[in-house]
Amino acid sequence: EAPHGLTPALRCCPSPRKPRRRLQALLMAGNDVPPRRGKVLTVDTMNANVKKVEYAVRGPIVQRAVQIEKELKEGVKKPFNEVIKANIGDAHAMGQQPITFFRQVLALCSYPELLDDNKFPEDAKNRARRILKACGGSSIGAYSASQGIDCVRQDVSRYIEHRDGGIACDPDNIYLTTGASDGIVTILKLLTTGEGRTRTGVMISIPQYPLYSAALAELGAVQINYYLNEEKCWSLDIDELQRSLEAAREHCRPRVLCIINPGNPTGCAFHSFKKVLFEMGPKFSSTVELASFHSTSKCYMGECGFRGGYMEVINMDPEVKAQLTKLVSVRLCPPVPGQALMALVTNPPQPGEPSYAQFIAEKTATLNNLAQKAKMTEEILNTVPGIRCNPVQGAMYSFPRITLPERAIKDAKAKGQVPDMFYCMKLLEETGICLVPGSGFGQKEGTFHFRMTILPPTDKLQTMLRKLKEFHQQFTQQYS
Amino acid sequence: EAPHGLTPALRCCPSPRKPRRRLQALLMAGNDVPPRRGKVLTVDTMNANVKKVEYAVRGPIVQRAVQIEKELKEGVKKPFNEVIKANIGDAHAMGQQPITFFRQVLALCSYPELLDDNKFPEDAKNRARRILKACGGSSIGAYSASQGIDCVRQDVSRYIEHRDGGIACDPDNIYLTTGASDGIVTILKLLTTGEGRTRTGVMISIPQYPLYSAALAELGAVQINYYLNEEKCWSLDIDELQRSLEAAREHCRPRVLCIINPGNPTGCAFHSFKKVLFEMGPKFSSTVELASFHSTSKCYMGECGFRGGYMEVINMDPEVKAQLTKLVSVRLCPPVPGQALMALVTNPPQPGEPSYAQFIAEKTATLNNLAQKAKMTEEILNTVPGIRCNPVQGAMYSFPRITLPERAIKDAKAKGQVPDMFYCMKLLEETGICLVPGSGFGQKEGTFHFRMTILPPTDKLQTMLRKLKEFHQQFTQQYS
Repeated sequence: EAPHGLTPALRCCPSPRKPRRRLQALLMAGNDVPPRRGKVLTVDTMNANVKKVEYAVRGPIVQRAVQIEKELKEGVKKPFNEVIKANIGDAHAMGQQPITFFRQVLALCSYPELLDDNKFPEDAKNRARRILKACGGSSIGAYSASQGIDCVRQDVSRYIEHRDGGIACDPDNIYLTTGASDGIVTILKLLTTGEGRTRTGVMISIPQYPLYSAALAELGAVQINYYLNEEKCWSLDIDELQRSLEAAREHCRPRVLCIINPGNPTGCAFHSFKKVLFEMGPKFSSTVELASFHSTSKCYMGECGFRGGYMEVINMDPEVKAQLTKLVSVRLCPPVPGQALMALVTNPPQPGEPSYAQFIAEKTATLNNLAQKAKMTEEILNTVPGIRCNPVQGAMYSFPRITLPERAIKDAKAKGQVPDMFYCMKLLEETGICLVPGSGFGQKEGTFHFRMTILPPTDKLQTMLRKLKEFHQQFTQQYS
Repeated sequence: EAPHGLTPALRCCPSPRKPRRRLQALLMAGNDVPPRRGKVLTVDTMNANVKKVEYAVRGPIVQRAVQIEKELKEGVKKPFNEVIKANIGDAHAMGQQPITFFRQVLALCSYPELLDDNKFPEDAKNRARRILKACGGSSIGAYSASQGIDCVRQDVSRYIEHRDGGIACDPDNIYLTTGASDGIVTILKLLTTGEGRTRTGVMISIPQYPLYSAALAELGAVQINYYLNEEKCWSLDIDELQRSLEAAREHCRPRVLCIINPGNPTGCAFHSFKKVLFEMGPKFSSTVELASFHSTSKCYMGECGFRGGYMEVINMDPEVKAQLTKLVSVRLCPPVPGQALMALVTNPPQPGEPSYAQFIAEKTATLNNLAQKAKMTEEILNTVPGIRCNPVQGAMYSFPRITLPERAIKDAKAKGQVPDMFYCMKLLEETGICLVPGSGFGQKEGTFHFRMTILPPTDKLQTMLRKLKEFHQQFTQQYS
């Protein structure tokens, strides 16, 4: 069956099998490309920027972890019986439960026949009706506007106004995206221009979330590192910002300051930089171009798989905004179920609505559980000589610093491995714990870290931290 | 509430409001960038490739159509009372009904509590259980593997094997994507390299679907046009392929042959080029690098909003494939609901399963209805002097050729408009019918067309075709 086929008959169209020899010659034509190789597309002839892309969060350690899981399934004996993945902020995979109300509305939107089912609360049905009414043909299977569904963008803008204590947010400045990553890459794309010393430079915090370095490598922009102050709990240090800015001016054109907020991988708390701009007065709130991003993937909802996200752009040149709107229209629209979910996250059940009590109970339980695990992680790790962990304040990650014995560093380098990669790989092989080496996020020369999510269930997290403690002590002994 | 906030307290972190003056200086730093302007990002300082991007399917005509809809709502008097959008292949928006089985499974995956509900057939529940079992934490809210969920890729590969009469398809060659567009752009990205005469050239059929020209503009690759043979029902002409290939070799390095199949906008029938390669023998089936794409958006399902898609890559260099896998991992994963939907499209109810009869009935009804509307479109348009429409065979689009009077062409040029844009804009203003001018897809110099979907409900389509006929006759008279 032809995937799109309406009528299998070819009618007046000639069969593609007819002028065989000529088509053959043509299909081989690409191979004339020097360097003469069997393939048209090789690592030597592919996009060089793509080769520079690195993404540690799903890098070699994780690939090995997947392999080990297979080996365990096949009955291979290991010193452990399961792999604990603390490498990625994947809440549901770690057992966090979705919010009932969100999933009820998504089910209603997917299969509207359920709107007649009295098992569903009225407020869930009303939300579903409102979303469906805003969809073409009342179906989430229809394309939405490229910028996102109007009423969802209105929910987002009201949510931002509430977040910032009433500072106005125009729905026209809201773009719904395919997760936050999509929006970040789109804005960086708009900003990337120039050659050599005029190339766009983008200031990013080190340690950073590797999406930024990956996107900059792919776009051919210049990555400008500014280092967060680990001693002051990964805070942002103005002197350091100034230093990196001035240093960058020597070799590129700095145009963007990225702030990862709440901190990933460092876990620092969230501040609304839009609110900060407005507190700095109109000179700033009416001029500084700011794009900020959020997604449904983190926080109490942890709905990563739906790839829901939004960005707000303020003070953007109207002509550029028109270009942005055009650019996003090429991909037609963000996934509509993700848009629906974003509408629920930004406009959850309100006091007096039937689902309010359960929503608050579920949300609070999840946040308290995360806060408790954050505290436990900090406390247990700080009992280990050679590990120092800052408070985990705003995100689901810890980024503890580890002291590695000289001999371990030597051995690693001998193996051609970065020392903390060497450490994490050994940890994985001996304990089944999967972390991401600090080198995947960037760190001060000579310092070593790993990123660990706090997401595993409390008991599993506790076991993991205990194993980690034992491992670190053995490791230190072995190499001292 | 801080979007990700676990603890609102700042703990040891200094408030971002403290060293105010220095931060102000820093935030203004970007404005030092020459040319001195109020904004850092302007049309003069933005990515030049993005400016070159054009996407007619959501271009000026569509923007005006949206405006007119608003005006109608506000009670503005028009010679019509609704806008008929035949500009985009958005089946559900035009009233096409989703397949019940697909939506039942999606509801079950979204809200697994429904698995205990005896309103749902067992085969729908089994499909949902299978998909959920393959998700982290049995939740579609978890990230999937970046290449897509294993069991979904297996469904896709079996579907392709069936499509091609048993030719083997390796699930490792399947990548799930965010709609087909995402996959197409990713592969073009891998292939784009070189400067000046060594730049990658990509052969695309004219008329083309503007995603291709948009992606090539954005990537800075060279678009190589080959013209489909309208007289032979938009068929692919080897002489023309040869001509465009040789011409292109003068100024770039042709490396890719794109075939839009089934034809968009031309509506030609589908052929499996993988099958063709295998019929040409091992010399081709084992060497020619082929990437093919499919999505959940078209055909009888028309589920555009879910952004489900896949690509199959064969004969790709293993090192390049590793680079491809790395590249897609940066975006984490395609939307999981779209992946689930793709599993259902490629593995629908089977004979003997409870939902089989209804599935076949719904699918057949939709396809028959589309086939009937395809025929009606061709027949009615061909009764109009000055309009010639090829048979609509494989896709939901017609791309009829229109003859425009000399004076209309002059008037259009005087207005600085492309003649078929002038025609479509007038059509929209006078009848409320929204089509896309042929110039948005490309056409032979001196010929004019429009793309019209066949998706409106039969009665509405008939009215639309009648209005179109009247308009064309008046237009021709007015300008003769």
